[in-house]
Amino acid sequence: MKYRTHNCGELRSEHKGQVVQLSGWVKNWRNHGGLLFIDLRDRYGITQIVFNPQQGKTLYEKAMTLRSEYVISVQGKVNLRPEGMVNKDMSTGEIEITAEKLNILNVAQTPPFEIMDEIDVHEELKLKYRYLDLRRTANKNNILLRSQLYKIVRDFFHQNDFAEIETPFLMKSTPEGARDFLVPSRNYKGKFYALPQSPQIYKQILMIAGFDRYFQIVKCFRDEDLRKDRQPEFTQIDIEMSFVDESDVMDVSENLVKKIYKEIKGKELKSEFPRMSYQEAQSKYGSDKPDLRFDLSITVLTDVFNETQFNAFSSVIDDKGIIAGLCVEGADRFSRKQIDKVTDFVKNHGAKGLVWLKHQEDTLEGPIVKFLSDREKNEVIQKTKSKNNDIIFIVAGKEEETFSILGELRLYLGEYLDLLDKTKDSFLWIIDFPMLEFDHEENKFVARHHPFTSPITKDIDLLEKEPTKVKARAYDLVMNGNEIAGGSIRIHQASLQQRVFQMLGISKQEAEDKFGFLLTALEYGAPPHGGIAFGFDRLAMLLANANSLRDVIAFPKTTSALSLMDGSPSPVSEKQLSELGLRLESNKN
Amino acid sequence: MKYRTHNCGELRSEHKGQVVQLSGWVKNWRNHGGLLFIDLRDRYGITQIVFNPQQGKTLYEKAMTLRSEYVISVQGKVNLRPEGMVNKDMSTGEIEITAEKLNILNVAQTPPFEIMDEIDVHEELKLKYRYLDLRRTANKNNILLRSQLYKIVRDFFHQNDFAEIETPFLMKSTPEGARDFLVPSRNYKGKFYALPQSPQIYKQILMIAGFDRYFQIVKCFRDEDLRKDRQPEFTQIDIEMSFVDESDVMDVSENLVKKIYKEIKGKELKSEFPRMSYQEAQSKYGSDKPDLRFDLSITVLTDVFNETQFNAFSSVIDDKGIIAGLCVEGADRFSRKQIDKVTDFVKNHGAKGLVWLKHQEDTLEGPIVKFLSDREKNEVIQKTKSKNNDIIFIVAGKEEETFSILGELRLYLGEYLDLLDKTKDSFLWIIDFPMLEFDHEENKFVARHHPFTSPITKDIDLLEKEPTKVKARAYDLVMNGNEIAGGSIRIHQASLQQRVFQMLGISKQEAEDKFGFLLTALEYGAPPHGGIAFGFDRLAMLLANANSLRDVIAFPKTTSALSLMDGSPSPVSEKQLSELGLRLESNKN
Repeated sequence: MKYRTHNCGELRSEHKGQVVQLSGWVKNWRNHGGLLFIDLRDRYGITQIVFNPQQGKTLYEKAMTLRSEYVISVQGKVNLRPEGMVNKDMSTGEIEITAEKLNILNVAQTPPFEIMDEIDVHEELKLKYRYLDLRRTANKNNILLRSQLYKIVRDFFHQNDFAEIETPFLMKSTPEGARDFLVPSRNYKGKFYALPQSPQIYKQILMIAGFDRYFQIVKCFRDEDLRKDRQPEFTQIDIEMSFVDESDVMDVSENLVKKIYKEIKGKELKSEFPRMSYQEAQSKYGSDKPDLRFDLSITVLTDVFNETQFNAFSSVIDDKGIIAGLCVEGADRFSRKQIDKVTDFVKNHGAKGLVWLKHQEDTLEGPIVKFLSDREKNEVIQKTKSKNNDIIFIVAGKEEETFSILGELRLYLGEYLDLLDKTKDSFLWIIDFPMLEFDHEENKFVARHHPFTSPITKDIDLLEKEPTKVKARAYDLVMNGNEIAGGSIRIHQASLQQRVFQMLGISKQEAEDKFGFLLTALEYGAPPHGGIAFGFDRLAMLLANANSLRDVIAFPKTTSALSLMDGSPSPVSEKQLSELGLRLESNKN
Repeated sequence: MKYRTHNCGELRSEHKGQVVQLSGWVKNWRNHGGLLFIDLRDRYGITQIVFNPQQGKTLYEKAMTLRSEYVISVQGKVNLRPEGMVNKDMSTGEIEITAEKLNILNVAQTPPFEIMDEIDVHEELKLKYRYLDLRRTANKNNILLRSQLYKIVRDFFHQNDFAEIETPFLMKSTPEGARDFLVPSRNYKGKFYALPQSPQIYKQILMIAGFDRYFQIVKCFRDEDLRKDRQPEFTQIDIEMSFVDESDVMDVSENLVKKIYKEIKGKELKSEFPRMSYQEAQSKYGSDKPDLRFDLSITVLTDVFNETQFNAFSSVIDDKGIIAGLCVEGADRFSRKQIDKVTDFVKNHGAKGLVWLKHQEDTLEGPIVKFLSDREKNEVIQKTKSKNNDIIFIVAGKEEETFSILGELRLYLGEYLDLLDKTKDSFLWIIDFPMLEFDHEENKFVARHHPFTSPITKDIDLLEKEPTKVKARAYDLVMNGNEIAGGSIRIHQASLQQRVFQMLGISKQEAEDKFGFLLTALEYGAPPHGGIAFGFDRLAMLLANANSLRDVIAFPKTTSALSLMDGSPSPVSEKQLSELGLRLESNKN
């Protein structure tokens, strides 16, 4: 027995008169003029089925037992809908099926929430019944878009002679940055594999093996304390190339993005993506991933206030801090109440306070103008290019923090003043990153990208002398304010890799224990190489205009890494533990 | 600075006179007539570079320092090779590069083994230096063939409207059959995720979610005691379809294989793959994956010997065993010594002994003919269709064992007598499997495929009464004696699934604990569905004519699940363990 001759999305008026068979889910039903109408749904669409009591009482009575989400197979004739009943919003809206046979393939309990798009259900309920949640059109389409994205990405790389190669999931634990998920070994009790945080070392070794161009769409794992919208397992597009410099990797990445945009959005992105130094991004936009769909940039005003009478500013200058501001149009949109909101916003992001100045009738107004000299007022106007009915928000404090707060404020104002052109897309490379970053938790310098990132050639001599001045051959790709990819040219010489490990406070012994196999491999003819990795989930989310990574992952976990559908993680048997040579630590409280 | 204008495989005589730059590895070098010749290798090929002392002493002296596997970049002019020096076996054999500039990008230590194909190196050394092993042409080509195979497979499924969907790697531990690899949870100490043995339940849930056709090429994990040529992590092509029966899944699978054959081997496989019942495969070929590239089949002879005087046979018949044999041409190829070898072979496979009969001068000869009546001899000849110069090997014992021993003997004889036509490919579906299999270790019945496999509809009533007679809606695809895929139509009704769990001795509580989320999902509108999974590694191995799965895996593990390159599994820190709430069991010896 065949279940169907057509799917629920393909019948049109030209099928009129054909006897067809469809299978799917009962989306809903209604009685109208003595007839029973069923909307039958499958992945491909919805088709209207009509049960007419005149076709036979048994059939009609059987149809009357149908309920939402029952799975049925229906045979019947394709008829044109009566005039006035045509539904132009449905691809099958011109026809309906007059049922002749009905087979109930499976019954269904009443779902805990209705299968429709605009529905307000608690996230946990949706995750528990993820199979019902995935029946909603928006979710289904997200997953199908993701499916299409795999295809586009892989086609691109195959067309460009990249070899697709799988790297191991059971690998050596080399925690660096995030925590590894561990996998106990049964054969070697007391020893563990780790799941990859990324295939970084393996893809470098593939270059040393001579594969020249590698890519893989691959699951990676990080056992981090989950912040909002992170997943313990995530997918990345992993790329590595030999005999390349930064531009080669960036070119390939741009071409990939352009292909994706063309195929998914039908948009041609023609121009080259602009490049901006990390320093410029920080000082102009307060972010290493600025959203350039609107112009607003930060103005540094420290010099203006060198001799200021305003104590809050002069004390910051004494502490070698900075004073900087954002100037936006529309002072009239900022009532006292709204300004209080902005003040709360910056305070929540760590600012001591907020200074605001409204530009009205060719001068500045605001609670602190009484402390400002005319020169200061004029210079603020000049530097910020302020005009009448502009408002200038000023924050003062430590440099890094101040830029970062203004960066957040910039996004807030962009949203509030509706500055964002959401039809536009902004791509941007951030380059010239400092190699090091201070890890306040560990109280030491760590690699900003990872310890295999090459320093800029001319900075190599600074490695031991002025490590904080060393720039990395790293690059991040930013799309509409989101980092969608990051990569670097790697170190390909064992001696330089050793020096960098040293700089990062990794002892020779530790380097040997953790990365010995890479150091050895570098000794046997490693070509210059570099690469990049795209966050596949984030890319899919942005392309789908979804709000959460969870929306584009078939079976996502909660922010505390629970899988509510299958109930994992879960206890295991004593036998399983004992086979692994493990015991649970007894509770100590 | 650019590293190359061309790769090492693309220059031809039409590039004559061009100044080019190449980068790659020094494969070897030789001095000849005062010139230094270097074979420069990259992924794409080999190009000959000539260093001529007349081009400058410094350049020549630098070139003289080059050693095997150094990574260099060379600029020079493309020249035609002198007549007589053209190498037609090399794609670049018409030209050579006269070097003008040399940049040594990296030095290399002397490799522990030479980078050439025909080399006898201990497997462990090759795995430790896998990046060097992968530089060998045969290995490189295997990995590139595998890369091509991904593309072909995925294109096929995308073209056929399958959605590519990723299923979780951190999932619920539901050990059934093989052992799970476990992953301790840090957030929920004492609880564990498991790595998937297959995405079985998730792909069924995707059908319940309505995705209709799903595929994925996915890593799976089994913590088994490794037999020869198994890997703890392996790759499968995972497929599931809704509203289908066996034929639909088998058709898709056949079309996939045909496409692979066409694209990789350039062969059109036109006919439908034959289907054979498990019962027939066992009794004719002594195997559930018979190699049909040669004809030889088993003849059951029990009836012939119902009244035999030969004790070894009559006692087997008394014990309800069987007598069966294989008849092959070429009795003259079986000397006493060779027959002793065959006898040892069947004994090693569990036979009590071997009876052989040579057909010579229209009668049978051999040590036991004196016990046989003329009728018995004639019937043996008739039933086995023996001719002069044939030899008949007979084994007697328990049915299952005897078939299995003769199945092994069949392969042995196929090899010894060179019966296999290796230019031919044999594909075969095995169907009508018994649903159950007796697990001698666990001393209970277990599902032959897995507990989600549907019984044949007409056998459902036998579930409780005669479970051993129940056949499964399962199918295996056999290629040249290798199982390359296996699948089934699944149970889509919760009540039937419960009954099957019961039949398998899985209590209601256990079913709920392990598979509750599937049972619940089946209650909310599960469509009829089924699928199949291909062993991707094995398929790649067979297509590459490789001898081991390790040959087609970039970074394989040993049979004891060690990764010799990175040294995993390895000890982890106390801190890592304590964060997971785990302790190592102290040694008890």
